[in-house]
Amino acid sequence: MNYRKLGKILGKIMILEGILMTAPLAVSLIYRESWKHISAFAVPIAVLVLAGFLLQKLKPERDHLYQKEGFALTAMVWILMTLFGAVPFVINGDIPSYVDACFEIMSGFTTTGSSVITDLTVVSRSTLFWRSFSHWIGGMGILVFVLIFIPESNDGSSMHLLRAESPGPQVGKIVSKMKVTTRILYLIYLGMTVLEVIILMFDKPIPGYENDKLFFSLLTTFGCAGTGGFGFIPGSIELFHPFSQYVMAIFLILFGCNFSLYYLILIGKVRDVLRSEEFKSYFLIIGAAVLLVFLGLVGRFESFPQVYTTEEAFRHSLFQVASLMTTAGYTTTDYHVWPMLSTTALILVMFTGAMAGSTAGGIKVSRIVMAMKGAYINIRTLINPRYVPKAKFEGKTLEQKTINDVFAFITLYFFLFLAVLLLLAFDPVNGQTVTIVSDAGTYDVKHGFFSNFSAVLTCISNVGPAFEAVGPYSSFAGYSGFSKVVLTFTMLLGRLEILPVLILFSKRTWKRI
Amino acid sequence: MNYRKLGKILGKIMILEGILMTAPLAVSLIYRESWKHISAFAVPIAVLVLAGFLLQKLKPERDHLYQKEGFALTAMVWILMTLFGAVPFVINGDIPSYVDACFEIMSGFTTTGSSVITDLTVVSRSTLFWRSFSHWIGGMGILVFVLIFIPESNDGSSMHLLRAESPGPQVGKIVSKMKVTTRILYLIYLGMTVLEVIILMFDKPIPGYENDKLFFSLLTTFGCAGTGGFGFIPGSIELFHPFSQYVMAIFLILFGCNFSLYYLILIGKVRDVLRSEEFKSYFLIIGAAVLLVFLGLVGRFESFPQVYTTEEAFRHSLFQVASLMTTAGYTTTDYHVWPMLSTTALILVMFTGAMAGSTAGGIKVSRIVMAMKGAYINIRTLINPRYVPKAKFEGKTLEQKTINDVFAFITLYFFLFLAVLLLLAFDPVNGQTVTIVSDAGTYDVKHGFFSNFSAVLTCISNVGPAFEAVGPYSSFAGYSGFSKVVLTFTMLLGRLEILPVLILFSKRTWKRI
Repeated sequence: MNYRKLGKILGKIMILEGILMTAPLAVSLIYRESWKHISAFAVPIAVLVLAGFLLQKLKPERDHLYQKEGFALTAMVWILMTLFGAVPFVINGDIPSYVDACFEIMSGFTTTGSSVITDLTVVSRSTLFWRSFSHWIGGMGILVFVLIFIPESNDGSSMHLLRAESPGPQVGKIVSKMKVTTRILYLIYLGMTVLEVIILMFDKPIPGYENDKLFFSLLTTFGCAGTGGFGFIPGSIELFHPFSQYVMAIFLILFGCNFSLYYLILIGKVRDVLRSEEFKSYFLIIGAAVLLVFLGLVGRFESFPQVYTTEEAFRHSLFQVASLMTTAGYTTTDYHVWPMLSTTALILVMFTGAMAGSTAGGIKVSRIVMAMKGAYINIRTLINPRYVPKAKFEGKTLEQKTINDVFAFITLYFFLFLAVLLLLAFDPVNGQTVTIVSDAGTYDVKHGFFSNFSAVLTCISNVGPAFEAVGPYSSFAGYSGFSKVVLTFTMLLGRLEILPVLILFSKRTWKRI
Repeated sequence: MNYRKLGKILGKIMILEGILMTAPLAVSLIYRESWKHISAFAVPIAVLVLAGFLLQKLKPERDHLYQKEGFALTAMVWILMTLFGAVPFVINGDIPSYVDACFEIMSGFTTTGSSVITDLTVVSRSTLFWRSFSHWIGGMGILVFVLIFIPESNDGSSMHLLRAESPGPQVGKIVSKMKVTTRILYLIYLGMTVLEVIILMFDKPIPGYENDKLFFSLLTTFGCAGTGGFGFIPGSIELFHPFSQYVMAIFLILFGCNFSLYYLILIGKVRDVLRSEEFKSYFLIIGAAVLLVFLGLVGRFESFPQVYTTEEAFRHSLFQVASLMTTAGYTTTDYHVWPMLSTTALILVMFTGAMAGSTAGGIKVSRIVMAMKGAYINIRTLINPRYVPKAKFEGKTLEQKTINDVFAFITLYFFLFLAVLLLLAFDPVNGQTVTIVSDAGTYDVKHGFFSNFSAVLTCISNVGPAFEAVGPYSSFAGYSGFSKVVLTFTMLLGRLEILPVLILFSKRTWKRI
């Protein structure tokens, strides 16, 4: 292990986090918050920057990073960011428990959006800003920033970072000219963010929040861009006007697209985008899911409390599919009480997630497509043993190695899912009753199997809200500290697509090869 | 497609089923049931035997079966057995709907044990016998019988059958001297069955059923041997004495073992059995699961209605783990109301299932072990790219091909799981309330997500009972005809380990190569 090199990079990350924290500090100053709130950011900034600079004094024994170090570093970066990012919440008292605060900010950085805050109205502006801003930071991946900041990484070691970091199984063309491409992707991300903020500013103000238009537009957009989805007023997006809800749904779907597609559009290869199988599958799944959710709502095969007009039913269907499939987790209505058809369709898109190379979590559409092709090849080979597989994906030959990796990933995903489910079974919260107040009325739900099941799903897929006792109008506050730590790591496992976290905690990683 | 050869084999299956049906016919005669009940078996027997003999007149163009034909044949055999096996229930009126009757007997042959019968007290003896007997028939696989009956299958085509048929990824040594080994396995199966019947006969009679000792011992044992688990009196095994419950638990665990292990014991290689990784893992999982379920019951972290003594808590824990992990599905108590820890542990063993090469369903312990090893290899390779995998399983080199097949299977298993979950979401039963009467009292449950989730799990893993509205003291009668057909095929998918069914319904199978 090249400890000094790792230390040096982690030092850079600390400086970076310190710089990023100046944004919520500025918010705290602008809104004239108390000294406690200002120092909640000022003190960590000072510590981060100072410690970060001290770590720069390290003289690495070699400049090169091995692959295992790249993977382990990736996981360490997220953990370090979380350990420091949680401190402000504890200092300013918005989230007094450090475990809870770590859960909250890990949920932010991993763009999950699950929250332990039960009452958003008593939380300070700077806290709200830092939470949502962490989505935006996490969205494109902390290490995409790092790549820009590390000039000495021209030896290929940074490729290991991006491999571990970038969502989805294939980095493909992006890797080749990495530093240039990274900057371009970052500019696209920034450009789309600015665009969404501007468009949202055109909406009427939300009644009761007339002076918060810019603040809300920013926070909303951070959550959309990072597909995070922390709410910042009670009821998430329920009080927003339909205009904003439609705009958000469209931007969520756009942020769920593989960013290399935008790069292709920029260089004029629109036809390549339209030919992309993942692109077509993504919109096919969205269309099918919206249809099923909508059918469940207008069909009224089951009774449920809300009474929607057809437009409302369509809007909520579109919004919830966009929000849960891109794993943002914003909500416009209490979907927990919806009929089974709508519920099941939402659960399924929480598994699939959006496209690889986007800010979304989940299994990813490309993996689903490749797994289907792999299964097809298996069946074809059994039907005719002389069959020579010639599957293609995105115009290139789909190697058996890639298919195997996809199968391995999905297997690990479900195994870890079940393991976490077992760990949550120890929580004393199980069996307890929670009272929910939502647009569906006031009702009691028991913390049952579906709560834990959907909690694991929402964390491993980085969605945010779950169902039942941890539904859209509830929070994760009821879970014990142990469960919160488990779920915190589950979010990280989901965000980093499992392997980097397992490598970090593997004994072998820390041995000399 | 060698249609005539397929027809000829299916004809033999029909004759076989006709012969097997003479057992319930005998039961009908012994218990002096009405002519309607006697003819319910006599008429199908006549039709099966006659049609079967007519099909023997077919002159196949070639004697050989291709691999795809072997797989498709396997699936066809089960479907044919089901289509005819369901007829008696309709004729004697015990299950008037043909779709329901097909569900019931498919549940029998696949050794699932899910039932659509809401009141077992009004059902005839011959029906009860035929249901449970179908477990015993299905247990060792219809085709194991067939292998004995087909003298012309010395050309290797029967190997395809066994590959498709035998549970678990590795047939291994068994295949080599197949016909001899098949007979030996069959004798072990028969021997263990007789032993269990005899031991159960030593128990005191069940109050209210004093004259049914032999009948019940037979039915109980059929369900244990096939790991099926149809109940035949209200409350499944609740009314049985502890002695019988312990005996059943032990026999269930024994029937969940790979039968080739018994073969090894017979030829004196006991040490090989004790060294078997799957054997060790199997007992490790059983031990861990019993401990967790027991902990959930005695810890009383959550309140639940039943009051157990420590012995009762242990007995129910052991019994339910043995019953659900070997995918039998017998129940001694209403486990649906148990605390989350116990519930989750039971759900997990319903996923794992028992050992490959047993009569159990589920993913199988050997696959879990191999998937873990495969994941370990993946991580090791990422940590050190020069690492040369040298994983072993059961003393033999674990090929990458085998690992990939395991990953592919598990991926398909979960994908199909989610697909079936979506199909059940269309059912009008969703959201409806069911009243359950059990040893936990009388209570209402809503048919919610957990009902469907556990229904899919119990069918794909061939367990039997599920949770919530389809729990141990309820039935599958509430589901619509569509859902029942879907679940019928889900049981078949689980029993044949997915691929044969997919091959049967693949267009390519029916084309000329």
